[in-house]
Amino acid sequence: MFNSDAFLVSNFFNILYLTKFETLSPHEREAYLLIIKERKIIITDARYEGEKHSEDSELYILKQGERVGEVITKICKENKVTSLGCEAEDIKWSEVQMLQKLDIQIVPVSHAFSQKRSIKSEEEIFAIKQACHIGDLVLKDITPYIHPEQTEKEIAWYIERSIREGYKAEIAFDPIVAADSHAAIPHYNTKRGDGEIKDGSLLLIDFGVKSHNYCSDITRMVGIGAISDEIKNTYSKLLIVQEKTIEYINSTSSLKEIDAYCRKELPVYSHSTGHGVGLEVHESPRISALSKDEKKEGQVFTIEPGIYHPNKWGMRIEDTIAISHQGEIEVLTRFPKDLILL
Amino acid sequence: MFNSDAFLVSNFFNILYLTKFETLSPHEREAYLLIIKERKIIITDARYEGEKHSEDSELYILKQGERVGEVITKICKENKVTSLGCEAEDIKWSEVQMLQKLDIQIVPVSHAFSQKRSIKSEEEIFAIKQACHIGDLVLKDITPYIHPEQTEKEIAWYIERSIREGYKAEIAFDPIVAADSHAAIPHYNTKRGDGEIKDGSLLLIDFGVKSHNYCSDITRMVGIGAISDEIKNTYSKLLIVQEKTIEYINSTSSLKEIDAYCRKELPVYSHSTGHGVGLEVHESPRISALSKDEKKEGQVFTIEPGIYHPNKWGMRIEDTIAISHQGEIEVLTRFPKDLILL
Repeated sequence: MFNSDAFLVSNFFNILYLTKFETLSPHEREAYLLIIKERKIIITDARYEGEKHSEDSELYILKQGERVGEVITKICKENKVTSLGCEAEDIKWSEVQMLQKLDIQIVPVSHAFSQKRSIKSEEEIFAIKQACHIGDLVLKDITPYIHPEQTEKEIAWYIERSIREGYKAEIAFDPIVAADSHAAIPHYNTKRGDGEIKDGSLLLIDFGVKSHNYCSDITRMVGIGAISDEIKNTYSKLLIVQEKTIEYINSTSSLKEIDAYCRKELPVYSHSTGHGVGLEVHESPRISALSKDEKKEGQVFTIEPGIYHPNKWGMRIEDTIAISHQGEIEVLTRFPKDLILL
Repeated sequence: MFNSDAFLVSNFFNILYLTKFETLSPHEREAYLLIIKERKIIITDARYEGEKHSEDSELYILKQGERVGEVITKICKENKVTSLGCEAEDIKWSEVQMLQKLDIQIVPVSHAFSQKRSIKSEEEIFAIKQACHIGDLVLKDITPYIHPEQTEKEIAWYIERSIREGYKAEIAFDPIVAADSHAAIPHYNTKRGDGEIKDGSLLLIDFGVKSHNYCSDITRMVGIGAISDEIKNTYSKLLIVQEKTIEYINSTSSLKEIDAYCRKELPVYSHSTGHGVGLEVHESPRISALSKDEKKEGQVFTIEPGIYHPNKWGMRIEDTIAISHQGEIEVLTRFPKDLILL
């Protein structure tokens, strides 16, 4: 496996994916997963005694004062392991230094699990569909309350509150609510911005739900009061392109071509046309000009073209789409895509 | 500096500390800081054009397609740099591989800025004091609403909602609300738990506020309805020890001794007596048996002894404390420390 006898998984999401074992924080190192022959050994501390994990994995609880390195060495020696793969994008230099003290060759591997994770099981697609469904309900709940003189921050907070308080789910990322010229900045940061809704504002709402560990991602546009014909016409054009791009998925086997197809009739936009969605809101595959990923059954990704007029306004329409194991394209985000006029 | 001609800072909080420059997420690599002679060069992408940073730093915006490695090489060559320090605990193996391709010796440095960061300026202490003050107000706001049949999760959500909606601040970490036997687990995870408040429950509330990037940390105990004399007496004893430990800070110059003093009259508890608080809620110094840190003016840390009866109940009292630049001990969390009886 991976040109090594064993593999040490450090990434939170990969451990979760491979064993269903979950630590408190994705950003603190609270567990490692050692894959060795047919065994999956989760090495963690006493806090996680009795914690849930898959049947094909086992829990090794570190004893008081026992170090991870010692345990890895011991298990590797018992199994005559001479080389150990590691996640190059995840493991830190200090951890590499710790591992290099062991009598084992350490092999960095790039994106070891991203291909595997990009193909979702039926259950995973179902979980993402549930997250998308909550997103649809949240949009339905919050849009009636949008009005002039509100700040972008307030609307972002309503979205989060609805997701968390109303649906007992989590946010997949901090909601982006961007009014007018802010919407022309593709990754506008609502938390740091100071935007306010005015009569005549065009509002971009981009958010995701995380439910049972799986994410959704959706973008819809809201017009408040009198919206110019220019904006309405541009929106109609963008919507046609977005929908035709979704239809086009059936006609190609290369994700790069989906990106190219989508861009054909639109002004240049600086982001990719889409990205995989799963345990993380951004994962494999990529729908972009540089993508080498092929279209495969079980993939779940977004289609999200945008039209941006810097310093004026911006618009984007984003759906989360699944390619079922029967090869059908299913749009999982189902909130209506017309420009929402309030 | 650091036995290298230049230093590459990758950690979000260290970049923020050194330059006041802040990217969207602490967990995605969106900027590096190259310190070279007297210059501090923040290397980031076009999203951060025009973003705020300290006067003594400069912003280098990557051009389309330009790689971080190229920029670092170019600047290092111009400055005849032959060795480059890096943060061992922060930089990832794939990044080290990228740097090792440069014609420069790469030097891993451990905890390069933690000592410096552990000594707070007057402004930093003020910011932490503000965060503590918000925490006090939140406790005052939410305690009247605690009642039997509520879940721990609901109370945790009220705390978060009060911090964010009421005070426009952030949570420093997911609030811990732990009832009865859950409170005996020092790092209980409320989000995954299923605890409910009952008449007679003893409730531990441990949360932090983040305001203007600086954190607070406080733990208080709430008794609902009839609380046994055993619990009340144990609480009184713990409170005396916690307060005497705070007084004792003046009598020693070693943080290890503060830990030892605090433990003298208490049953063994598995966590440290305290930790530094600043841009992160856990940082240097440590107040523990293994701590090598000395007491210094400008430190801000918690004092948080606990008494735990596994499977029965647990209690902890935690304050955030500053040692002023005049050498005075100031308790920044000021919410009353008596057992809150509802």
